Amino acid sequence: MTESDLPVVQLTPGRWGDPAHPVELPAAAVEALKHLGVRRPAAAQADPTDRPGLTDTTFLAELLGKEQVRTDLETRWGHTRGYSTPDLLRHRAGDTSDMPDAVVYPGSHDDVQALLTACSERRIAVVPYAGGTSVVGGLAPARRFVAVDLRRLDRLQSIDEISRTATIDAGVRGPAAEALLAEHGYTLGHFPQSYEGASIGGYAATRSSGQSSAGYGRFDQMVVGLTLATPRGTIKLGRAPMSAAGPDLRQLVLGSEGALGIITSVVVRIRPRPTERSFEGWRFESFDQGLAAIRRLAQDGPVPTVLRLSDEAETAVNLADPEVLGGSTGGVLAIVGFEGPRHPGVAEVLTAAGGQPLGEGPGETWRQGRYRAPYLRDPLLDEGALVETLETAGFWSALPALKAGVTEALVKELSEQGTPPLVLCHLSHVYETGASLYFTVISAQTDEPVAQWRKAKTAASEAIAEAGGTITHHHGVGTDHRDAYAAEIGPLAVEALQAVKRVLDPHNILNPGILIP
Amino acid sequence: MTESDLPVVQLTPGRWGDPAHPVELPAAAVEALKHLGVRRPAAAQADPTDRPGLTDTTFLAELLGKEQVRTDLETRWGHTRGYSTPDLLRHRAGDTSDMPDAVVYPGSHDDVQALLTACSERRIAVVPYAGGTSVVGGLAPARRFVAVDLRRLDRLQSIDEISRTATIDAGVRGPAAEALLAEHGYTLGHFPQSYEGASIGGYAATRSSGQSSAGYGRFDQMVVGLTLATPRGTIKLGRAPMSAAGPDLRQLVLGSEGALGIITSVVVRIRPRPTERSFEGWRFESFDQGLAAIRRLAQDGPVPTVLRLSDEAETAVNLADPEVLGGSTGGVLAIVGFEGPRHPGVAEVLTAAGGQPLGEGPGETWRQGRYRAPYLRDPLLDEGALVETLETAGFWSALPALKAGVTEALVKELSEQGTPPLVLCHLSHVYETGASLYFTVISAQTDEPVAQWRKAKTAASEAIAEAGGTITHHHGVGTDHRDAYAAEIGPLAVEALQAVKRVLDPHNILNPGILIP
Repeated sequence: MTESDLPVVQLTPGRWGDPAHPVELPAAAVEALKHLGVRRPAAAQADPTDRPGLTDTTFLAELLGKEQVRTDLETRWGHTRGYSTPDLLRHRAGDTSDMPDAVVYPGSHDDVQALLTACSERRIAVVPYAGGTSVVGGLAPARRFVAVDLRRLDRLQSIDEISRTATIDAGVRGPAAEALLAEHGYTLGHFPQSYEGASIGGYAATRSSGQSSAGYGRFDQMVVGLTLATPRGTIKLGRAPMSAAGPDLRQLVLGSEGALGIITSVVVRIRPRPTERSFEGWRFESFDQGLAAIRRLAQDGPVPTVLRLSDEAETAVNLADPEVLGGSTGGVLAIVGFEGPRHPGVAEVLTAAGGQPLGEGPGETWRQGRYRAPYLRDPLLDEGALVETLETAGFWSALPALKAGVTEALVKELSEQGTPPLVLCHLSHVYETGASLYFTVISAQTDEPVAQWRKAKTAASEAIAEAGGTITHHHGVGTDHRDAYAAEIGPLAVEALQAVKRVLDPHNILNPGILIP
Repeated sequence: MTESDLPVVQLTPGRWGDPAHPVELPAAAVEALKHLGVRRPAAAQADPTDRPGLTDTTFLAELLGKEQVRTDLETRWGHTRGYSTPDLLRHRAGDTSDMPDAVVYPGSHDDVQALLTACSERRIAVVPYAGGTSVVGGLAPARRFVAVDLRRLDRLQSIDEISRTATIDAGVRGPAAEALLAEHGYTLGHFPQSYEGASIGGYAATRSSGQSSAGYGRFDQMVVGLTLATPRGTIKLGRAPMSAAGPDLRQLVLGSEGALGIITSVVVRIRPRPTERSFEGWRFESFDQGLAAIRRLAQDGPVPTVLRLSDEAETAVNLADPEVLGGSTGGVLAIVGFEGPRHPGVAEVLTAAGGQPLGEGPGETWRQGRYRAPYLRDPLLDEGALVETLETAGFWSALPALKAGVTEALVKELSEQGTPPLVLCHLSHVYETGASLYFTVISAQTDEPVAQWRKAKTAASEAIAEAGGTITHHHGVGTDHRDAYAAEIGPLAVEALQAVKRVLDPHNILNPGILIP
């Protein structure tokens, strides 16, 4: 089974994956949660309270056709928020405060363009929606709004095999994109944890980074061209791989999270599908030892396709069977993956750096479970655990303090709330000059879990800023990181972004309140 | 002799290099020019006509110290324009229309910041100047102005050996940067043709691309952080190698050519200095055959550090001795260079693609002459030739039509003016999805060479747009490409850039007329 065989999972907010096939927690995990003081809550799922949708949808029906406009509760509730833990908790509470007032299904770039023009004239806010996988409040604007579901923009428009580029509609989801490219023998190589649900447009709008980023690069590095619909008209960018013609405006659109326009298609670099692949486990004595080894590969090569390193806590929690670590107790697990032939030089470097090869067993286990973590959050919440993830990135020299600072902040803040947490961390997404750190936090819930997490998240964000990291390496800004982002780039850069937004979106209808203060 | 041993050449506009050591044309070349109808002009260098400089320099002297402010003719004339052929022709005519009204020498970021604030209050235009090597009118604003010479910003501020980054002042010139890094065992690996004169800040502001870009990347790919002084204050960007925190605003500053602010320092990725290097020549039957071979390497690897391919005309003109091509007549020359160990896989790929190895002779000849071309333009102009270069980039599938279209446009336009040209081309700066094409044009001058070239350049620019290429891959926009650039990104994107400029530069003092219409 390869990535292109995976089905698109029709996510609906509230729970990850197909509701017909819920994932259950292992009994041992349920037992382990008790040590954190986790108790199963009494409350079940509350029904959403309806509130009136958009009353006059005539102009939308005239633009798109009547059947492409929905105001029923089920459709609207199914387009409400994304998948942060606060989102899931609000969903369980039946909270409809961020529910769209209508959902529309444009079928083409021209539809989207006409829609934005019409909504701008009427001062109606719009939020692009495809996979709906935001974990940073990217789908919860500050005003009532229309959700623009892009699922009908679902084509592989063209492939240029000589240039190795493909033009793909924004609404194409991860597995569908791989399947369409596989017919021609190509792959994008972009496999974020949200792969089964997320979309091409979402990847671009949020600067997504996949688990194979060491080999294939980030999504913003794959994009060579894009088409953006804005209330003022369409912008097309990208005549060459690289250019010295002024600032790279593609990089202004990438990461704009629907606040500057709706990306309707992208031109992406593609690569021939690999005919072989292998994933291996490696053990290191400590996170610090593993870090030095991974850095060595990232800086001097050879660089495998996947490169990640769990810390001591994550290694212990994720490995049911300690025998996986070569019979040793303790230590940390690294995953090294190759899409294409194995490069023997990698093993040489890792061995010289103190690594112990564990073979393909742990690698395959990781590969097969690589999209599984989001599924586990639902039963964990069912059990009464608070579980959330956050991530950052920094230069190599900053990473040790960044990891320690964030961990300490989370432990301190949640302990003060009476719910001491387990904090797990891994390093992934390596570059010559630095890498990303990804944290998973598990604790018992208090009576006010949304507020409980908000305090913990604020403490973690302050620790990230203190240690000089960026507020997000691949989750994006949304509403959750908006203030931290503003602090990171400074007031003058914020003003510059606001000025761009005023030009493209003079009536502030595009994802208002997201990204740009 | 390595790049870090080369001296900084103190360029002064008008002629490239050290005036004490003029370069002479080979007699054979002078003879060859006659076939193009080139005749040595009577006119010698005209003296520049003085015009009054800035009269009230008190505020500048108070900010920077009296000795850091100059209004004498020699200094101002020495900061006039750059090195396009029209620039050189105007210089020869003694044309002072673009001469600055004063030249100032700030010594620090704070000096630059204070200067911009003060000049903005007084509505005095400023143009950053370091190497002065622009070939696109990047130093000739639309108003009278003060040139801000950054030569005193000359420090390697710090090195982070763990993250492999260095913080370097904007005024450090190419060879000085290499020499400073070499003391610590590192290199930038950035060797554009303007290397001897150009500066770190200029590299960043113009999205420079060096001859080793296949291995080391473009300068905009090396920059991980930067500090920008603007009339409204300072912006610092870059907390991590990559981030999903909104648009990548570093990429908005890179390529902004002094129109959004003055870059005072950059944080760049550095690499250990290679201990070996080798440059080889390869012969292909035709440009098309060579193109296919180069594309194969760029897309599937292994990728050498330097990769370039001359077309038939450039090969014939540049090779004094046809024996270099392995005794064959015709064909084209490729240069393949390795900074670090040779990768044997490269030769395999090139041989399989029809390439014939020529050994290190032609490679070394190219390497030793790699900065020589700009020197040759001066004696060519002395002889009465019109000689100029232009470049573009496009996706691989577009390159054949791009090359043919530009060549045809130049030949047609200059022939119609009675001066049929020689048009040489090479491919360089490869990417997975495309590459750059670089053209050299030589013809006889008409009586109005500036107008003569303007028409030829317009025809070439239209051909580039027609074939879907970008107006510049590494020369930048300046004033020469401003309109073509605006057409390339479209009116809405231009409005967005203008809005950013209004925020950062409300009184339009920064390089007015450059880049942004």
